[in-house]
Amino acid sequence: MIPRYSRPKMVAIWESENRYKIWMEIETLAAEAMAELGTIPKEVPVAVRARGAFNVARIEEIEAETKHDVIAFLTNLGEYVGEEARFVHQGMTSSDVLDTCLAVQLTQATDILLEDLDGLLAALKRRAFEHKHTLTVGRSHGIHAEPITFGLKLATYYAEFARNKTRLLAAREEIATCAISGAVGTFAHLDPRVEEYVAEKLGLKAETISTQVIPRDRHAAFFATLGVIASSIERLATEIRHLQRTEVREAEEFFSAGQKGSSAMPHKRNPVLTENLTGLARLVRAAVIPAMENVALWHERDISHSSVERMIAPDATVTLDFALARLTSVVDKLVVYPERMQANLDLLGGLVHSQQVLLELTQKGMSREDAYKAVQRNAMASWKEGKNYRALLEADADVAKHLTPKDIEALFDLGQHTRHVDTLFKRVFGEA
Amino acid sequence: MIPRYSRPKMVAIWESENRYKIWMEIETLAAEAMAELGTIPKEVPVAVRARGAFNVARIEEIEAETKHDVIAFLTNLGEYVGEEARFVHQGMTSSDVLDTCLAVQLTQATDILLEDLDGLLAALKRRAFEHKHTLTVGRSHGIHAEPITFGLKLATYYAEFARNKTRLLAAREEIATCAISGAVGTFAHLDPRVEEYVAEKLGLKAETISTQVIPRDRHAAFFATLGVIASSIERLATEIRHLQRTEVREAEEFFSAGQKGSSAMPHKRNPVLTENLTGLARLVRAAVIPAMENVALWHERDISHSSVERMIAPDATVTLDFALARLTSVVDKLVVYPERMQANLDLLGGLVHSQQVLLELTQKGMSREDAYKAVQRNAMASWKEGKNYRALLEADADVAKHLTPKDIEALFDLGQHTRHVDTLFKRVFGEA
Amino acid sequence: MIPRYSRPKMVAIWESENRYKIWMEIETLAAEAMAELGTIPKEVPVAVRARGAFNVARIEEIEAETKHDVIAFLTNLGEYVGEEARFVHQGMTSSDVLDTCLAVQLTQATDILLEDLDGLLAALKRRAFEHKHTLTVGRSHGIHAEPITFGLKLATYYAEFARNKTRLLAAREEIATCAISGAVGTFAHLDPRVEEYVAEKLGLKAETISTQVIPRDRHAAFFATLGVIASSIERLATEIRHLQRTEVREAEEFFSAGQKGSSAMPHKRNPVLTENLTGLARLVRAAVIPAMENVALWHERDISHSSVERMIAPDATVTLDFALARLTSVVDKLVVYPERMQANLDLLGGLVHSQQVLLELTQKGMSREDAYKAVQRNAMASWKEGKNYRALLEADADVAKHLTPKDIEALFDLGQHTRHVDTLFKRVFGEA
Amino acid sequence: MIPRYSRPKMVAIWESENRYKIWMEIETLAAEAMAELGTIPKEVPVAVRARGAFNVARIEEIEAETKHDVIAFLTNLGEYVGEEARFVHQGMTSSDVLDTCLAVQLTQATDILLEDLDGLLAALKRRAFEHKHTLTVGRSHGIHAEPITFGLKLATYYAEFARNKTRLLAAREEIATCAISGAVGTFAHLDPRVEEYVAEKLGLKAETISTQVIPRDRHAAFFATLGVIASSIERLATEIRHLQRTEVREAEEFFSAGQKGSSAMPHKRNPVLTENLTGLARLVRAAVIPAMENVALWHERDISHSSVERMIAPDATVTLDFALARLTSVVDKLVVYPERMQANLDLLGGLVHSQQVLLELTQKGMSREDAYKAVQRNAMASWKEGKNYRALLEADADVAKHLTPKDIEALFDLGQHTRHVDTLFKRVFGEA
Repeated sequence: MIPRYSRPKMVAIWESENRYKIWMEIETLAAEAMAELGTIPKEVPVAVRARGAFNVARIEEIEAETKHDVIAFLTNLGEYVGEEARFVHQGMTSSDVLDTCLAVQLTQATDILLEDLDGLLAALKRRAFEHKHTLTVGRSHGIHAEPITFGLKLATYYAEFARNKTRLLAAREEIATCAISGAVGTFAHLDPRVEEYVAEKLGLKAETISTQVIPRDRHAAFFATLGVIASSIERLATEIRHLQRTEVREAEEFFSAGQKGSSAMPHKRNPVLTENLTGLARLVRAAVIPAMENVALWHERDISHSSVERMIAPDATVTLDFALARLTSVVDKLVVYPERMQANLDLLGGLVHSQQVLLELTQKGMSREDAYKAVQRNAMASWKEGKNYRALLEADADVAKHLTPKDIEALFDLGQHTRHVDTLFKRVFGEA
Repeated sequence: MIPRYSRPKMVAIWESENRYKIWMEIETLAAEAMAELGTIPKEVPVAVRARGAFNVARIEEIEAETKHDVIAFLTNLGEYVGEEARFVHQGMTSSDVLDTCLAVQLTQATDILLEDLDGLLAALKRRAFEHKHTLTVGRSHGIHAEPITFGLKLATYYAEFARNKTRLLAAREEIATCAISGAVGTFAHLDPRVEEYVAEKLGLKAETISTQVIPRDRHAAFFATLGVIASSIERLATEIRHLQRTEVREAEEFFSAGQKGSSAMPHKRNPVLTENLTGLARLVRAAVIPAMENVALWHERDISHSSVERMIAPDATVTLDFALARLTSVVDKLVVYPERMQANLDLLGGLVHSQQVLLELTQKGMSREDAYKAVQRNAMASWKEGKNYRALLEADADVAKHLTPKDIEALFDLGQHTRHVDTLFKRVFGEA
Repeated sequence: MIPRYSRPKMVAIWESENRYKIWMEIETLAAEAMAELGTIPKEVPVAVRARGAFNVARIEEIEAETKHDVIAFLTNLGEYVGEEARFVHQGMTSSDVLDTCLAVQLTQATDILLEDLDGLLAALKRRAFEHKHTLTVGRSHGIHAEPITFGLKLATYYAEFARNKTRLLAAREEIATCAISGAVGTFAHLDPRVEEYVAEKLGLKAETISTQVIPRDRHAAFFATLGVIASSIERLATEIRHLQRTEVREAEEFFSAGQKGSSAMPHKRNPVLTENLTGLARLVRAAVIPAMENVALWHERDISHSSVERMIAPDATVTLDFALARLTSVVDKLVVYPERMQANLDLLGGLVHSQQVLLELTQKGMSREDAYKAVQRNAMASWKEGKNYRALLEADADVAKHLTPKDIEALFDLGQHTRHVDTLFKRVFGEA
Repeated sequence: MIPRYSRPKMVAIWESENRYKIWMEIETLAAEAMAELGTIPKEVPVAVRARGAFNVARIEEIEAETKHDVIAFLTNLGEYVGEEARFVHQGMTSSDVLDTCLAVQLTQATDILLEDLDGLLAALKRRAFEHKHTLTVGRSHGIHAEPITFGLKLATYYAEFARNKTRLLAAREEIATCAISGAVGTFAHLDPRVEEYVAEKLGLKAETISTQVIPRDRHAAFFATLGVIASSIERLATEIRHLQRTEVREAEEFFSAGQKGSSAMPHKRNPVLTENLTGLARLVRAAVIPAMENVALWHERDISHSSVERMIAPDATVTLDFALARLTSVVDKLVVYPERMQANLDLLGGLVHSQQVLLELTQKGMSREDAYKAVQRNAMASWKEGKNYRALLEADADVAKHLTPKDIEALFDLGQHTRHVDTLFKRVFGEA
């Protein structure tokens, strides 16, 4: 996480201020539940609500001495609350606070990411409808295959990010649990109803069963989901980088007027944003394996996961937030060149219709082998000698037995390739 | 995937026989739909159903020449079916067959993995109930913390693998889609109803929108899920390895009578199965990043994903199947030593009850600081001089002001730690 | 490792036959050293050399019962050798045989990979010299930058793979060690001279200090090196895939005459080999993290590394061998289109010379800002209106103050970009 | 990289101040070489050396507008230097500065890491000699195997980190190269002697051949090496975590007097530092795959590697520096309990000598089968009934035929296991 690739709202989630704020809420809620259950005096939560406060610098000062962050926080809290503070945290273990706090932070982060996805989906949808009928060539292996529309291309990305939204919602459920269960998860000094109360108030579920910690398979599943989303970002970024190549130039990232270094070489509009996104995707994915290695903690817990999470939780969410926002902006402002798309589509003089011709000849009763030969010899002549493919076909005696020039014209009709655009749009967007 | 870590049922899914069988079913179903729609003669699917067959060796022979597997298959199919075969596969692209086949294979594989998980869950549940009240020490950082029961330990694994089952069901949905959409996914030469028909008959969903291929974010999410499950396997395997250490010896992998190399050194019962599972977990996880790198195919597809999937699809599913089965057997036959658990629990002469004493003293009105000092001096005396901790506490004047010997006895009651076992079992198993 | 991506010579290294052959050599050499030292009777190694043999099926039969591969092997060896066999393996531990054998197998594998690299380097060198002066456009960000020659491009790959050879030689040293040091590496029942003798005879070094096993940081470094080489393969494969794009078409993978599926769509020559190599690179890299996770074995060893190595050692070496051979063939037969390179170079009407003009104007005394503006307005005019860039510059009054048409002609001289080709070739190949 | 796991010296390398300082040195050196070659006026480097300066805030201000860091820096430089500044950077491309700067930063970082390794090696050596003869049990699979000394254990780590030092020196060479070669590496507007001059002055080598950038296989090899070192850290950390387990307690991390949270539970000395190191190892390893994914840049460069390196270069070096320093401190102050080591060694009543007895019986002429049976029945009796193993052997009639009580005493001599300590120390440390 570095400022260059960060947005303040997501960064704020991971700052000390927010963490201690959540800790205070957890401790206060737990105290409320304990007071209600009669385990601690009724005045305790009242006092904490009334006078509870913290000071980040002071906590750090105490922690430097005690080397224990939760104790430092509680000591500082006591400095504000006074006597009643000694009942706070009673029967709880530090991890109850830390892990529940992480759950709150991750859900906060996820809510931002969900908004990001909504923004990206909206941009993709808008541009997809805008280019619903913009013809362009479909490519497999980087080689021209058959016509497609640019809107359909964008629709595939929309569908992919819609799946990512579903995945992220599931990932949010994975990590939205609360544990207030004590040193080894047995509630030895706690009533399970405390956990249930805190969970409900925080919008979390009580963890089914915890050890000292919330089990880390949850977090592994969460970060793996971020890795999948990052990979989808890479796919769209790679598409745009390809479209912006000098020889292709079907689309370009928006280039702001003041942006330096380009105007003396006007062709030198580099797809730096999508290249950057390709790199950011690698970074988000880098969190996946460490998160999985974090699962196998020893017995009821070891603390090896902690340093990993202190880094990857901010890094992966901040980077993904930034990347989604950047990608949304790229899609939103993408400069599309339909005339270049058409020019590329025409580049091979109609050879992209070969398969259509082949199919039709077979349909008309020609054997597959003969049809193949007929298509092949004319395609080769067109390819090698640059002759017009359609004219060649019309002049071919064997083809003429089965297809009239009008038939051939129909086969070269691009409409063939767009007749199911509505069907596909309905599938993807629910409307066409 | 090597025989040593493979089970035949899962291996069979990835053999040529099964693959071609699925291809034939896809082609036949597609032909049925096309015939129904009037695109090809009604006799075609009838002929394929009647005479359709294939010969693996023959297909390989043709493929060696043509370097194209689907064409080789269709040629061979034609040799059996005759004339009608030329209408088979019409308007389809090879990927329609390959990707839909992969979806079928992955769902078949997942169904076995789901059975495996059920088996593991059953074993964990049985052993958890068997040891519901078997006391053992809970450990954080490898250090004794507070008492727990062995059944509770197993319950945490049950809950984790139950989550894994939920994840795997979601992962199954991810990859259970069918695409029969042609060269670039536009249905240029196909009716979308063909896709819907084939999908339904195969128990799949029609892919919302495909390019030439089914989008690979689906497969990335699938393999990531296998990686999470593998990590959970590693956690349980690591637990057992720890319990079997010479100094701990609370549980041991079952050691078959004939197994060589141990009897001359009877203590040398090595947890080789769980060590092996630790390694297998690494292997399954190794599929995750390549699967994510597979997402960003160029434009409407490139074929870079193919070699990756030819390896990781069999490797990861076969290895995970083997690992789950091995783990189930380990859990099922695990030799548990309750007396050793009790001995370890007693190892520190009651120090595991410190926190309980501290808490009670505070409850009884002692200040947190004084309570801490009282507990500390007696704990240190017990630890350093090996004296009985409970006796020390009883003899401490400050403690005596607040706690009678009977109070102290109550605090040393292990029952404190097991009183919520039923609650937790109900949460985990739905019964206690 | 699947047959499709395997070559027999590398596969043979990992077959049982070779493994047992190496085991026998290790045991025989150890017996020779022990006999020489007087620890065992002189007849023992003589007998083993004379009658030593093994039968893979028989070993597997015994192993099925004993579940111990080395014991099974020794039992089978005894069946051939007779009485003297009982002195074989004396004081040794199974790992002495297994780990030393792995070292031999990995060095054998590395020697093949080194040959592969030599082959690739030779092909790159030959093609680099062939195209030493073939002009093509250099691209940054996929956008035309400045001219380069195709030979220079290939020279960068040559230099990269030459570095990879150096790395692989270092990696070979990493894993070429022998350990015959007993149960925990203390030589409790062995003389260190046995280890030294065996090491020397096998062309290995005696491991400085082993535990029960040869330390796994060595193997981690080895597989990491394979991962780097795989990434270089990906770079060259990606280059070729780009060059073969329909719109670029500067080079193509050789397409064998009989290869099916292309002739009806002659433009549809897909770079399937380099796409495949892109995928294979991901697979080789997948071994890196598991190999690193293997390092932290417990105490003097646990066996978690074993399953990992049984898979990744064959998989990574076989796949890399196949990939290097395939890449060599692709480079060797690559179809290069110099006229297409020239056409692409001319695509922007000389704009690639902008920087040269800008530099010269500054040299001639124009301020950087003014020079920039002059270049910019003419470049924009050329870019937007398709006018000849050189003509525009000649007609520009401000430019004319500093540059004559002859000066400008010189600035558009492609020779500017090739004048250091010899220097670079000498640096890379030691000759030009 | 977060303050908690950072040390200032390494952090400083990655701060803007240091980066711009290096940029200025590169530009100045390049100007010196150009002036010497007569390409630019002699006064230019003189002026830059005299008045050259920069202001981080001002650069950031300019960059915010131009979105180009090198132009921003040069503009700011010009504000200090004046007129002569326009000749600075002539013919160079931004990457010449950026990549050469990264090389300088990485070598600076590596030099710190090399010092760290020296510190760790010194600590390991000191403690190894201190405990050269401290007997402890060697363990395979976590199970007691045969005696070893604690010094030997440490010697294996010394040897491993000595290998890591060798690797790091090689990795340093990998990335210590300089490129001043222009837009696509052809020296179109530069003399190669400029590159050679700058390289020499900076203590780097001129890159053999660059594209627009220094090839990224170098950086991949570099970060892979950091990943291997991290894995070695994990191995030693894991060892200490095991030794500190309550049931083993053979060694403990030093626990500072003021450290909170322990004294009330004196046994609760948690190996938090080594657990933390286990997590940090995962983080360093997380840089490896992204660094490898960075290799395959498009054509002469794309900028996808940049964001990755902006994160992993500081993160991986800062984290590894911190981890090595922490590990050194842990080793240095490790509290070792020889009496606990002896107690654990005695735990099984001599069963660790089984193999020794077995071997001697065979040596004395007993058949392997009979010897095995004899050892086995007595070992089982000792194991199951807790009887003294040595007494049982002495009382065994079959054993007595071959071994006198004195022979048996000799076989139970721990000296057998330490007789090669000197040999091994000489191998590892060059002295004993």
